[in-house]
This record gives sequence, C-alpha cells and structure tokens, in this order.
Amino acid sequence: MEIINDEFYMSLALDMAERAQGQTGINPVVGCVVVKDGALAGVGTHLERGMPHAEVHALNMAGSKAAGSTVYVTLEPCSHYGATPPCSERLIAEGVKRVVVACQDPNPLVAGRGLQMLRAAGIEVTTGVLEERAIRLNEAFNKFITTGLPFITLKTASTLDGKIASKTGDSKWISNEESRELVHSLRHRHQGIMVGVATVIADDPALTTRLRVDGLQPVRIIVDSQLRIPLDSRVARDGAAKTVVLTTELADNAKRSALEGQGVQILVCGPGPRVDLKAALMELGRMGIASILVEGGGTLSGSLLENKLVDRIIQFIAPKIIGGYDAPGNYMFSGFELMSEAIELTGLETQRLGDNIYVTGQPVWKS
Amino acid sequence: MEIINDEFYMSLALDMAERAQGQTGINPVVGCVVVKDGALAGVGTHLERGMPHAEVHALNMAGSKAAGSTVYVTLEPCSHYGATPPCSERLIAEGVKRVVVACQDPNPLVAGRGLQMLRAAGIEVTTGVLEERAIRLNEAFNKFITTGLPFITLKTASTLDGKIASKTGDSKWISNEESRELVHSLRHRHQGIMVGVATVIADDPALTTRLRVDGLQPVRIIVDSQLRIPLDSRVARDGAAKTVVLTTELADNAKRSALEGQGVQILVCGPGPRVDLKAALMELGRMGIASILVEGGGTLSGSLLENKLVDRIIQFIAPKIIGGYDAPGNYMFSGFELMSEAIELTGLETQRLGDNIYVTGQPVWKS
Repeated sequence: MEIINDEFYMSLALDMAERAQGQTGINPVVGCVVVKDGALAGVGTHLERGMPHAEVHALNMAGSKAAGSTVYVTLEPCSHYGATPPCSERLIAEGVKRVVVACQDPNPLVAGRGLQMLRAAGIEVTTGVLEERAIRLNEAFNKFITTGLPFITLKTASTLDGKIASKTGDSKWISNEESRELVHSLRHRHQGIMVGVATVIADDPALTTRLRVDGLQPVRIIVDSQLRIPLDSRVARDGAAKTVVLTTELADNAKRSALEGQGVQILVCGPGPRVDLKAALMELGRMGIASILVEGGGTLSGSLLENKLVDRIIQFIAPKIIGGYDAPGNYMFSGFELMSEAIELTGLETQRLGDNIYVTGQPVWKS
Repeated sequence: MEIINDEFYMSLALDMAERAQGQTGINPVVGCVVVKDGALAGVGTHLERGMPHAEVHALNMAGSKAAGSTVYVTLEPCSHYGATPPCSERLIAEGVKRVVVACQDPNPLVAGRGLQMLRAAGIEVTTGVLEERAIRLNEAFNKFITTGLPFITLKTASTLDGKIASKTGDSKWISNEESRELVHSLRHRHQGIMVGVATVIADDPALTTRLRVDGLQPVRIIVDSQLRIPLDSRVARDGAAKTVVLTTELADNAKRSALEGQGVQILVCGPGPRVDLKAALMELGRMGIASILVEGGGTLSGSLLENKLVDRIIQFIAPKIIGGYDAPGNYMFSGFELMSEAIELTGLETQRLGDNIYVTGQPVWKS
C-alpha cells in the first residue's frame, strides 16, 4: 500500500519513461502524469525523436481537465522550438496550476529556462521529486547532450576468479539464463553494442536482442584495427541489424570494399596500429549514437578502462572458479602499481539473479 | 534493472490503474499499454465512469501504430455496449496482433466473452499475466459487480494489547504520522467511510481525506440507530463531503428533519433497536457505493464481524501497551468459545511504517 503524494504520481511518470528506454535515440525518455482535483486526468510518454513530447500526450488525454491541474513530468519541460513547439508554452496555455519536475534538463538549450518560463507565468513549480531516479534514467542523454559522446556501459560476465573463459577458450556458460535474459534487455535499452573482432572470430555471435517479446536491435559495432572480420560472420552478412566496423588506415582496401558490398559500414579511426577509441566514440556520437553497451572481450574492455572512456560497469558474477594461468580475464590492461590507484566504483547496486550476482556502478576517474 | 517481457509492460498498465483507484466509482480501474515492434506506442487508463476505457486512450495515442501491435490490458476488454462501445470491437478494428490480459472480467455481461470475440477474430490472446495483482486491485469491483454489495474494509489502529484508547478514552495518538498518512490514502481509494455515532460524539472527526496533495472525498456514513448525532458535529454541518446517516424506525422525526435541513441524507434501515447492517449495505450498494472503509469504533467493527460482513481487515499496530480492564478494544463482540472457531485472515501482508506495523488480510468465514 502506498501513500498518495507527489512521489506517488511521479513514480508513475518514471515507470512510463523507463519502459520507453531504447526507443528515443538521442532524445531523453520522459513520462508525464496530469492530476486534477485529486484524480488522475492524463498519462503520456515520449515515444520517438521528432514525435510529441510526454506532456503533449498527457495533456491531450486530459483535455479540458488540464486547466487548474498539477502536471508531473520526469524532466524539465522544454523551452525551445525543436522538432515540436516548447512544452512550457503549452503548459502555460492550458492554464495548469502546478508543475512538479523530477530533474532539470541538462540540455544547454533548456537548462532551467523551461522552469523560469513556468514560474514567470505564475505557475507553482516544485523540483527534485525522485530526482536521483530520474537522472539515472537519462544518464546516457545527460552525457551526450553536454559532450556529444556516447555513454559507455561495460558489461562483463565472469567467474569468481575474474575469468570470462577457461584456458581452452570455453565460455558456455558462465552466466545463467536469467542473467542472459537481462543482457538482452540491456541491448534493447542501448543504441549500440560493441565487441572486439576477436569475439566475432571466436564465437561468431549474432549480437541481436532476443527476448520473450519483440526487442529493439541496436547497431553492432566491431573494433577491428586490421579488418580481420570474416566476410561470412553473422554480423557481416545476416542483416539482422546495422553493422559498423571501426578500423584504422592499415585496413586492406579490397576487404573494405567487400564488407561495404555486404552493407557493412566502415569507419577509419586513426592511422593504427590500434583503433583510436576516443576518435571512434566522437564519430559514433556524430552518427547519433548516444549509448553503447560494450560486451568484451577483455582486451577491448581493458583498453576502454585505460583510456578512461567508461561511464558505467555492469558485471555478472557466477559463483564458479575456473583457474588457468592463461584463461582470459574480464579487464585486461597493464594495470596499476598501487591498490590506492585502482579504479573504484561509486553508486554501487547489486541484485541477485538466481545463483548469479549482478553488480553495477560508475568508475571514478582519479586525475 | 528489469527483464523486458510481458510482465514488464503489464506492470506499467497496473501502475496506471493503481493510481486511478478511488476515482472510477463502481467501475473497475484499468490500465492499458500498446507495444509495437519492440517499442512502447501508447499508454492509457480509465479515469471515470462514463468516460473512455483505458484501451481507447492508449489506442488513440498509438494512432496508426496500433495495427500489428501487442496490447496489454489489466482487465479483459469489454464485449458489450455500456456507456461506451465494446473495446473488443475496437481492438479488432485496429488490427492488433496480440492481446495480453491480466485477469478476466467478473462482470456477468463480459465474463470471457471479450476474450472469445478477440480469439474469434484471429487475435492471439494471452491471459493471467500478473493476475493476482490485477484481481487484488479490483477486489471491490469484483464483489460489487457480482453481488451488488459494497466491499467492506475494516480499519483499526491498536496497541499491542488490542486497545484503541486508554480507560479514560484518550486515543491521541496510537498510530504514528506515517500510518495516519496511509489512512488518508486509504480514504482516497474508497467511496465511503463508515463510523459509529459514538466516534462522532467522542471525537467530532472531519472524516475527510487530508493528504500532501489533493485527495478524493468519500461519502461519510454514520451508523446511528437513534439519531444521537449532534447537529453541530462536523460531519453534519461542514459540507466537506456528502454525509449519510444510517438509522432505524426508532429515530426521532424532528431530529431527522433538522439533519436533512443541513443536507444530511438519512437512511432508515430496519425497525431497530440496532441498524440492520446487511440491509444498510444493500441500500448503499443501490446508491452506487462499491467500497467502504470502516474506521470504528470497536462496537461497529465487532457487529460487522459477527454478521460476517467484512471483506478485508487492515490493522495498524503500535508497539505500545496501555492496559485497563475497561479500555476499549478494537473488535468488540461476544466472541467464540473455541480458538478453532476464531476468525482467521488469509492472504496476510505486512509492512513496516516506521515504528508501526501494517497488517492486512481477508477474513475466512467458517460456515
């Protein structure tokens, strides 16, 4: 049983936004609830870039009840003409009495102006209701809109000894079925999935979203400095989702043409010998990819960590010990000399998934 | 982090329905979510009797995306012409591919016919997703639509020794602030609040919903066999909500006229000396009151239990011991001889509210 208060209605707006994660591209997910005279009057959520904002759907449903209502919205209403007219103007025009906002819009085009417009029009404005949950929900958008870079989530599944395969390369399975279902749910929520070419060569993964319901298919991004990717690998030929290969100037031109002929997009990122990951992310950002789930292997994960390019780590831990001096590890890089230099996670969250453990947090970058 | 599956979308539909509790009168609360090609396409909820059903709002928002979509709805879509045309027809006309339903509509006018219509039209139908939560959400509607009687929730707040006041009558406060906020949230969710006249005489309560946000005001129902209610009591004069007094043929006519002059409605329920509670509930049901929260005192609660008229018990327990042989108890009736005859609760749920304990369950009536 829940107490009826601002949080009660805001949590519904957040529930709606949460379920649209993955479908709004470089736009934030936003939910909106209209309450009039103690009763729900409208609900709405932003579905897709270029389509109406959450407020518009909810106000349309509320109709004449919008006047004098309280409007709960998970993100500050916009103040600028984008693909659609500013929501702040619409809220003012409808005569709403009070607007409750979970968090401010970090978009430099808004950044408090939406709230100012509302207050200037005499609307009572409350901010910060369930703010932490709202910020977390749009952490990718928040980074992208201020930096142009995609938000990078590093996902690994390892044993208790930090291994992602045995010394012979066997990796089926470390995680359990529930963890794997959650991985597909993570793919659905991201715009891109990134792996190193060694993973493609070793496992020939489809890198598609496979759920019990339909899922969204993110762009498959392969880091492959010398274009070693097999022409007959699934990601290069199945057309199940767009595939982008990040390579260097060392790449063979004939191989490049052959891949392009199969519909694969090639991005040359620096002279080599390794892919310039920072330059690659900037280019992916320019392509409108705001969130990337990195799914290994250990060398790619290690490189991204060494270059401080990781925004969130998600690790599935299986209660198994595999051993093996040469068995591949989850984060492979030269490492630090002192434990005090280690990368630490903040905002730690853990969850049990049957006999697996889900751990997530944000790395803190020491200068 | 949640796995994306049928339950993921149904829980949003239930979240919406839950937030409309208290505003749909004798109609059920219903939420609806439209999903197309792995993406959210529409959300909607039923707001008020006579207004569009949840499906209509959600399909309107989805527009052309409704065709080929999966529609999640917390209650079986209706099959009959009521205040609005049948939702099953609309779903068929929109060309939806699949309908996922939490629970069947117990309304004898529907009761499976909505699902039959959908299946006959070639729509894939899945039922029983989050069924238990959906049934619980509409437990009042489910009783009312099949019996015409309101669903009775008995709410008490007592000490560890089952007392609702000290031997001198002091009762401020047994429960803590959080419990009291939850009581107001319960009032919001019910169509009627019932108390015995002794409570009105002793405490002169307002019996209104007072929340940090606006709340709905249920009808105040006073059980008063001899019209002892003071003319200047709040419920008789403040007009903050409708007031109905249940009395008997023993009631004084002059007092009755005076009360009616103040806008109080009088219902004569039997010859006396006590109000015929069963007859009273039938009359309240005929008035369109489908859910009543009974807030004491102990004698009224005891009478309702003795007459097996209670559908749910909610008890707030404070970790206090007051003592007193004559201190009033929470459920006052002559009682059973054997412990095996005791009224037992099924479907027990408990919740901590600071230092108070919230306990709820449904009494099992032994024949």
